[in-house]
Amino acid sequence: MSDALTALRARLAEIADLRSAAVLLGWDQLVKMPPGGAEARAEQRATIERLAHERLVDDGLAELLDAAEPETDADRALLRVTRRDVDKARRVPGELVSDLARAGSAGYEAWLAAREADDAAPYLPFLERNLELRRRYAELFEREHPYDPLLDDFERGMRTAEARDVLGRLREGLVPLVEAAPHVDRTVIEGPFPIAAQRTLVDRVLRQVGVDDRAWRLDDAVHPFQASVAIDDIRLTTRFKEEGLEGLFAGLHEFGHGLYEHGVDPAYGRSPLAGGVSMAVHESQSRLWENMVGRGDAFWRWCFPLLREAFPGRFAEGDRPAVVAAFNAVRRSPVRVSADEVTYGLHIILRFELELELVKGSLAVADLRDAWAAKSRDYLGIDVTSDRMGVLQDVHWSEALIGYFPTYALGNVVAGQLWARATAELPGLEEGFAAGDFAPLRDWLRERVHRHGRSMTPAETIAHATGGPIDPEPYLAYLRAKVDASAALMS
Amino acid sequence: MSDALTALRARLAEIADLRSAAVLLGWDQLVKMPPGGAEARAEQRATIERLAHERLVDDGLAELLDAAEPETDADRALLRVTRRDVDKARRVPGELVSDLARAGSAGYEAWLAAREADDAAPYLPFLERNLELRRRYAELFEREHPYDPLLDDFERGMRTAEARDVLGRLREGLVPLVEAAPHVDRTVIEGPFPIAAQRTLVDRVLRQVGVDDRAWRLDDAVHPFQASVAIDDIRLTTRFKEEGLEGLFAGLHEFGHGLYEHGVDPAYGRSPLAGGVSMAVHESQSRLWENMVGRGDAFWRWCFPLLREAFPGRFAEGDRPAVVAAFNAVRRSPVRVSADEVTYGLHIILRFELELELVKGSLAVADLRDAWAAKSRDYLGIDVTSDRMGVLQDVHWSEALIGYFPTYALGNVVAGQLWARATAELPGLEEGFAAGDFAPLRDWLRERVHRHGRSMTPAETIAHATGGPIDPEPYLAYLRAKVDASAALMS
Repeated sequence: MSDALTALRARLAEIADLRSAAVLLGWDQLVKMPPGGAEARAEQRATIERLAHERLVDDGLAELLDAAEPETDADRALLRVTRRDVDKARRVPGELVSDLARAGSAGYEAWLAAREADDAAPYLPFLERNLELRRRYAELFEREHPYDPLLDDFERGMRTAEARDVLGRLREGLVPLVEAAPHVDRTVIEGPFPIAAQRTLVDRVLRQVGVDDRAWRLDDAVHPFQASVAIDDIRLTTRFKEEGLEGLFAGLHEFGHGLYEHGVDPAYGRSPLAGGVSMAVHESQSRLWENMVGRGDAFWRWCFPLLREAFPGRFAEGDRPAVVAAFNAVRRSPVRVSADEVTYGLHIILRFELELELVKGSLAVADLRDAWAAKSRDYLGIDVTSDRMGVLQDVHWSEALIGYFPTYALGNVVAGQLWARATAELPGLEEGFAAGDFAPLRDWLRERVHRHGRSMTPAETIAHATGGPIDPEPYLAYLRAKVDASAALMS
Repeated sequence: MSDALTALRARLAEIADLRSAAVLLGWDQLVKMPPGGAEARAEQRATIERLAHERLVDDGLAELLDAAEPETDADRALLRVTRRDVDKARRVPGELVSDLARAGSAGYEAWLAAREADDAAPYLPFLERNLELRRRYAELFEREHPYDPLLDDFERGMRTAEARDVLGRLREGLVPLVEAAPHVDRTVIEGPFPIAAQRTLVDRVLRQVGVDDRAWRLDDAVHPFQASVAIDDIRLTTRFKEEGLEGLFAGLHEFGHGLYEHGVDPAYGRSPLAGGVSMAVHESQSRLWENMVGRGDAFWRWCFPLLREAFPGRFAEGDRPAVVAAFNAVRRSPVRVSADEVTYGLHIILRFELELELVKGSLAVADLRDAWAAKSRDYLGIDVTSDRMGVLQDVHWSEALIGYFPTYALGNVVAGQLWARATAELPGLEEGFAAGDFAPLRDWLRERVHRHGRSMTPAETIAHATGGPIDPEPYLAYLRAKVDASAALMS
């Protein structure tokens, strides 16, 4: 290995260690830290993040990157990924980074207050400021559309035009599905379900799908999330509510994220090649386990006896079809975070289309509420009755997080492609689920997606795993089959 | 404030943040981390520690230290402490630091194997290597005795001659006390005590003495310890065993450490003035709460009803004197970590005297076992029957940790002085304990010791708090009174 490459690897390992420390500081803050530690923690995190950033944009690292001579494919991937990371980081002036951080904090506080008062008006100037800064940010990069560099931060290499095409086709498939979906009675899965029993059930399920004590932790948090401190140090969090069993699906969702991080080739540890390749591919993993596995009939053939055992007397032996149907019920609701699989995509597409126009300037912030209401009616058949249920619903824009939303829906799309491919290539997959065997899917995902980490581009990863470019058709076919099954059951 | 001082403070705050991250990485490793994370964690910790060290020995920091113009006493203390820290760190060549780390790791592994086999012989060459490196380390500093710089690492400013004088006088007082102490029946405090009930009791006790959910955490660990991530983020760990109630005393011990770190003036946060001033002063705080408070009759007047409640039917109403006597029983035992207050000091003095001779070269490693056996007989009246109960008992030397042992006994000595002073200055202190009121002692310690952090030297801190230099007499008087009370009860 060339001396420059060796020296470069050492520097990148140091940056990776700082990032791992930052992950732990963040996890601990949300899961274990006594509240008195918050002020000091903000300083600790800022220092660690700053040191990692300084090291990434350091001239010495750029020189090593020029001098390094790759010998293997992994070396070439390392140099390619690092060059992109460094280039992106070096183009953004420190002042703009600070302005974005400050505007994001101020926007978040304004959003909290506006939400409390259920009135978006005082928040809109903060959103305007965030958009202005994000436009300045976008101008630092080559682009066909001002949204391109924003999307690229989360989905490297994807252009706005492609996202618009994929999500446009998705929307056209989803709108009629919402209308076609039958009303399903959800009483059978309505609580109360004692939280201790839910916890035991979810622990049992997660162990069966692939969690073990050697490399995983499971804790409670206010909002479920996954944090990977290292390839063999994966932390999931869940939240339980008596009213329903969402904690189970949230647990499977975070498990999907964790399994991805845990499955990366250990040789990529402490390097920029560790971790997920993009937000959409990451989300494809969480959604696959949450929905394709966790809401599927085969899974419940295995899990239903456990559910009955967890809540004695609550479910009759013949309730399984009704339970599965209820877990898959399509409902027009104004709330994105609790939306079903069919309407979820439309919630996202609405946000994506609006933020595209906002960034481009073809939609004024002053007209955002009206535009939101119109799209809600068109796509979901819903009247937005309050700002809280409308433009104040999500935190993302308030923190200047723009370009992130489409990756949620793109993740579902990729999950649909992966599911179609996995079920085609692995005969007996669902029979295995029914017997509690999830190893074949785990192994397949590891081989096709996980182990590659960031060594391929997102588009290459998707092509490698699914055999083609990103395509909404398999996902739509999967949803149509669910809606059809549901309609058959109801009739 | 001078520009140089402002810039210096910013750099020191960054180092403090790195150290806090290192504390969290260490705490998490022992308390929460899945075992699979161990390898990556070692790298993460090494990187963070190295970055902190690099920043401390950086030329730019040394220049700021020269240029900074102090305005307040706190500024002057900051410069003085930082100069000493920087000077010590800059004198040690990186190669020696690595050699010590490697030798410490190898020594630890050799110690584990030797302990397993109960034969010190294969371990002794590793100890010899550690001693050789520590001698080379000591040569980098001015010294009257080769042990001076080693002791100074833990007890800044104390010379070997002073430690030898204080611990010599302590030994002369302790040896006859061991002989005078009556045999006390300990059956009354022998288990089994269900662990869940112990946990509830200790949680209750710690909340009463001063733990709250805002700034503290309490977890289990294999070896109890305290970790302060920030002044308002203090983490205690305890360990419970069914056989006895040691977990309670360990909890009070770690509470004493935590209360010290938590009581430092918040203005010293993110600076080298935060934290305890020396190991002995730190240990004085833990021992004060564990022994002077926790083994005292007044404490048990408050706590005994809780003990009875925790273990229904286990203690009779009149058992309190017997319980307190048992908690204070003096026993000749070869094991330091479970030793009582009287014999504990002699265990330490034995180690201190031996490591002094080993460092000086007047005792050969080959003769260590014999020397250990001789001192055990002389001081404790004990025959050492195995290496495991003798020279292989403690981990410290195996990791090249030399100069640390005396601070345990010096901590007890300082605790004795603080206790004499506090009881003299705070009439009704023990009546308060009996009513569950520990605030007066907390406030007094905060004012006299805690809030000063590292702003005074250890010797100044002791003088400020106790009114004089370090002196074993008050501690011996306290122990004599305990032994007399015990003898009176037994007769």
